[in-house]
Amino acid sequence: MTPKTFKFPFRVAWVDTDAAQVVHFSNYFKFFEKIEEEFYRHLGFNFNYFVERGMWLPRVEAFCQYKKPAKFNDLLEGELIVEELREKSVKYHFKIFNKETATLIAEGYVVAVTADKNTGRAVQIPKYFLEKLKPYCKRL
Amino acid sequence: MTPKTFKFPFRVAWVDTDAAQVVHFSNYFKFFEKIEEEFYRHLGFNFNYFVERGMWLPRVEAFCQYKKPAKFNDLLEGELIVEELREKSVKYHFKIFNKETATLIAEGYVVAVTADKNTGRAVQIPKYFLEKLKPYCKRL
Amino acid sequence: MTPKTFKFPFRVAWVDTDAAQVVHFSNYFKFFEKIEEEFYRHLGFNFNYFVERGMWLPRVEAFCQYKKPAKFNDLLEGELIVEELREKSVKYHFKIFNKETATLIAEGYVVAVTADKNTGRAVQIPKYFLEKLKPYCKRL
Amino acid sequence: MTPKTFKFPFRVAWVDTDAAQVVHFSNYFKFFEKIEEEFYRHLGFNFNYFVERGMWLPRVEAFCQYKKPAKFNDLLEGELIVEELREKSVKYHFKIFNKETATLIAEGYVVAVTADKNTGRAVQIPKYFLEKLKPYCKRL
Repeated sequence: MTPKTFKFPFRVAWVDTDAAQVVHFSNYFKFFEKIEEEFYRHLGFNFNYFVERGMWLPRVEAFCQYKKPAKFNDLLEGELIVEELREKSVKYHFKIFNKETATLIAEGYVVAVTADKNTGRAVQIPKYFLEKLKPYCKRL
Repeated sequence: MTPKTFKFPFRVAWVDTDAAQVVHFSNYFKFFEKIEEEFYRHLGFNFNYFVERGMWLPRVEAFCQYKKPAKFNDLLEGELIVEELREKSVKYHFKIFNKETATLIAEGYVVAVTADKNTGRAVQIPKYFLEKLKPYCKRL
Repeated sequence: MTPKTFKFPFRVAWVDTDAAQVVHFSNYFKFFEKIEEEFYRHLGFNFNYFVERGMWLPRVEAFCQYKKPAKFNDLLEGELIVEELREKSVKYHFKIFNKETATLIAEGYVVAVTADKNTGRAVQIPKYFLEKLKPYCKRL
Repeated sequence: MTPKTFKFPFRVAWVDTDAAQVVHFSNYFKFFEKIEEEFYRHLGFNFNYFVERGMWLPRVEAFCQYKKPAKFNDLLEGELIVEELREKSVKYHFKIFNKETATLIAEGYVVAVTADKNTGRAVQIPKYFLEKLKPYCKRL
């Protein structure tokens, strides 16, 4: 079955840019996280689900390839799929397009681990969360 | 007695700039906070003193006047004085100079309250902290 | 005539928070700017109008009062009115509410000047821009 | 010949942290950039060398692995080596240590291209810059 893709459009803010008059490279990781947050919202879910269980979702890896610059006021669209679901981690793959020109701007991924906030140790992904992610997952 | 002034030099980073090729206005508040942190370090003190006592230092007011733009790589110097010490709050006044041209770039203040982290209520400034601040204070 | 108020709802992102588990005080200035950008968008207008004319809108003053903390995932709503329109500057007044509890979170203002990008000097607000702002203006 | 390593110590600022009370993952990319800027400063060089030649150094790839969390006020130390020097690009490899415990906190890289600001095309690394980088380079 083809996995579902979550899409989220947003505008480049002035504060996202730097003196090269394009989006600063570090801000794409904020975009990735924003898309992840909106994805959870779309699933009827948020980080607080973890917080209440004494868990969190620390990132263990983050990567981005920059294809084209994005400028202030550009209308972008983020796409998220679940690249990989493992016992204790999830890998999200992101694409950022310029929505008006349909050009790929940046592409990357983030690996997050479900962890116990007190011990710092990785724990199993809660079943409730897992079930929500599955329809968006490429490889199960 | 003339109050002491705490000075801290720093460079404008690329990420501090925006598409106007100057430091984004919101970043001056980060500079103010950085100067405050270095001031505490200079006093042999840090925020963790508060954290350990279940306290924190929430900001209740922040203000900045922008005089001249600052650019990437500019060497700036922050100056801090304690503008006002009240029973439960402290007002820091900041000036940011271009260190090479001795030009005033920005000037402003931050009012912080000593508060109980659990109740959220303002509490008296701990005497230990108060004594450290006094030599830098304009009005006691 | 009662001035119009521009309203813009948004969510607190994880990256907006700090170790006190509330929105970092400097981020309210980013919120103010985001609201201003969405206001321009609502008016069918953006900063590029200025860029194309060799102009920009540097900030000369910024102020914020913090009333209540905002947390990750809170649904906030920004309100903008034009507090004052002068020959070469505009003062925006902002209120940020928690949209779910209707509590005032923060309130402040930003004064921006219409300036020539090359000379750095203040210039008259373009009539086109002025007309768009008037319906939102408290004092003309 | 063993390549030289550039080292730069710095403190975690309050604004670097998020509600998990650790440094936000996106900020490591700001740290990488800060280390790169200080490296250039150490070499007697800065981005303005490029700006004056109508060039810039856009990032084409960025990666980070997160090993241990870093907290507010931690004293970190960044290490930079030149992982790879190609005709038109340079790959910097970074390690971030907790300087007090000598623990590896994060590790990653950034690939930057020397490009013409107007055409957006990659151009040869200027010889002057290349010579400065060589002593820090693992593979020539």
